[in-house]
Amino acid sequence: MSDTITLAAPFDAHVHLRQGNLMRLVTPHVHQGGIRMAFVMPNLVPPLTLPEHTIAYAKELQALAPSLHILPSLYLTANLTPSHIREAKQGGIVGVKSYPRGVTTNSEGGVGMEGYAVYDAVFAEMERVDMVLNLHGEVPSDIDGDGTCVLNAEERFLPHLREINRKFPKLRIVLEHCTTAAAVEAVKSLPPNVVATITPHHLHLTIDGACSTPLGFCKPLAKFPSDRAALRAAVASGSPKFFLGSDSAPHPSRSKLPALGVTLPSPCAAGIYTGANLVPLTAEIFERSGIPVDRLEGFVSTHGRQFYGFPARDGDEVVLRRVEGRTVDKAYGYKTDKGEDEWVIPFLAGEEIRWEIAA
Amino acid sequence: MSDTITLAAPFDAHVHLRQGNLMRLVTPHVHQGGIRMAFVMPNLVPPLTLPEHTIAYAKELQALAPSLHILPSLYLTANLTPSHIREAKQGGIVGVKSYPRGVTTNSEGGVGMEGYAVYDAVFAEMERVDMVLNLHGEVPSDIDGDGTCVLNAEERFLPHLREINRKFPKLRIVLEHCTTAAAVEAVKSLPPNVVATITPHHLHLTIDGACSTPLGFCKPLAKFPSDRAALRAAVASGSPKFFLGSDSAPHPSRSKLPALGVTLPSPCAAGIYTGANLVPLTAEIFERSGIPVDRLEGFVSTHGRQFYGFPARDGDEVVLRRVEGRTVDKAYGYKTDKGEDEWVIPFLAGEEIRWEIAA
Repeated sequence: MSDTITLAAPFDAHVHLRQGNLMRLVTPHVHQGGIRMAFVMPNLVPPLTLPEHTIAYAKELQALAPSLHILPSLYLTANLTPSHIREAKQGGIVGVKSYPRGVTTNSEGGVGMEGYAVYDAVFAEMERVDMVLNLHGEVPSDIDGDGTCVLNAEERFLPHLREINRKFPKLRIVLEHCTTAAAVEAVKSLPPNVVATITPHHLHLTIDGACSTPLGFCKPLAKFPSDRAALRAAVASGSPKFFLGSDSAPHPSRSKLPALGVTLPSPCAAGIYTGANLVPLTAEIFERSGIPVDRLEGFVSTHGRQFYGFPARDGDEVVLRRVEGRTVDKAYGYKTDKGEDEWVIPFLAGEEIRWEIAA
Repeated sequence: MSDTITLAAPFDAHVHLRQGNLMRLVTPHVHQGGIRMAFVMPNLVPPLTLPEHTIAYAKELQALAPSLHILPSLYLTANLTPSHIREAKQGGIVGVKSYPRGVTTNSEGGVGMEGYAVYDAVFAEMERVDMVLNLHGEVPSDIDGDGTCVLNAEERFLPHLREINRKFPKLRIVLEHCTTAAAVEAVKSLPPNVVATITPHHLHLTIDGACSTPLGFCKPLAKFPSDRAALRAAVASGSPKFFLGSDSAPHPSRSKLPALGVTLPSPCAAGIYTGANLVPLTAEIFERSGIPVDRLEGFVSTHGRQFYGFPARDGDEVVLRRVEGRTVDKAYGYKTDKGEDEWVIPFLAGEEIRWEIAA
């Protein structure tokens, strides 16, 4: 096996960089983790629902990570108009992210039970100006109603994906962080302008690891071994329809591991943090998963860059080097905006990782 | 709706009372929670693999809870012989508990991949002397092998249940803490000597509540809304095949909510603590679940007592009284055997509970 891997400038097509001191902590991690271009999520507090919000946020991030090519995104709400879409396109915003209401962190302003038809004019304009639609592909849980829960929420979303593609056949659509065999099959069956991102943690976890510690808890939840096998097969196939979107989502440790006395037990924050180590970690998980390492460049760079239309430039390669005795950091400390000591605990904290970025 | 409910001496057919100071904390809770007879689990450290171990443990518990009728159990291992079964029967042990290896807390000594055929002589003797077989009905996860995970582990166990019943048709069998529609159907389809216990928390939770906090994490895991609906329907039907086994399983808060710095993130302990409030909590969950309260006495007392052959005595009734403004305790403090301050956090901590035991 080779001891180095050279990758055209890696692209993370789905990352959360937050706000305030947490943003200042994690934004520089992206480049350190081997990423050279990042599509950044708009689910802030408040969410980035207008182009001017997104553009201001992108500037803030750019100052923290001057070497990172930042692709900003807009948060889909019913207040968005075709004119906002044109403004966004002119301002360099490449995608609009749709969150079903309440399914994950800061998604209270997302798409509700009224469905997607109210967005027809916006989607038509996005199709016309060639802007990407990024779908969080889950319908909200409705335990006491139609029986939707975190295990079937993605499969039940797929008819919406098919319907949007039917209505807007040229609209470029990303089904974000897909986790099920059903989603993989749906994306494969749709035209080339409908693709999916896959996270490293969903190539690694199943429900057993997702339910047994808050550090494995994220939305969408990791599911059956057969679902993980479908994700691995999609990546191993080398299909350009599947590429890296880490969904790296830092949370302060208190919201993941509520200590007694700090808060009464409540749902833990959903999200897994992989940003600081992303490319080496992805290589590590490829090896653990039996995915050929020669598929790594397509997954972490070429496929996503091709879809978004930003080919890598010569000279921007990142080199991974095999290493022994390295472990994932246990935690990243920072001061909260209130001045408290806090930590972000990364995925696979303390575990061995056999790759590093060559200096 | 009535403001009091009178119940023939309630019976918890599945409870964990632990060892040391934790045992001293939770054993008196059983009676306080409205239970008058309890079938106590043998998965201690080390497990109670010989009749003399079980008998000594039962004496220890009895001293802590003089008013509680304690039914002791033996831990099934391949070292157990028919002669041990006769000894157990004579010593007042009513059941033998089978844990598949590694599926839950302290189950390392349980049944392995060799299956149940090695226990034929023991099961035959249990059938002859009329001792109960208590099955933890899950096969071990085998994520990288046959795809068994916590979601399908119970359904994949059901062929073992059918096979044991086929070979030993008169053996009384309890499928413990059943959680799936498939398990309910299997138990209903088998003869009257095959029954199941159901926990209050599985009448309340689904996967959404089970995966989003360590306090909802237990084995077997709560599953789909359709599974919960099947459990509720089984209880609401009034079938004597389904009765209360709380699986109340106290864990120190550190093993449920590992605080940063205390331990590196690792799997949380599986188990939900309901013991201190069990009968009022069960009434509360019946009401929240839409299960008629007139099914409560069968579920918490008559069905289980009938199956185990210990009818309630007149004068041992427990009366529940409707109450307002009562909440579940936030935590129960104790000193660990090492002298550290610890807490057990109960299920639905801090939530309203609208019933209490009348003094």
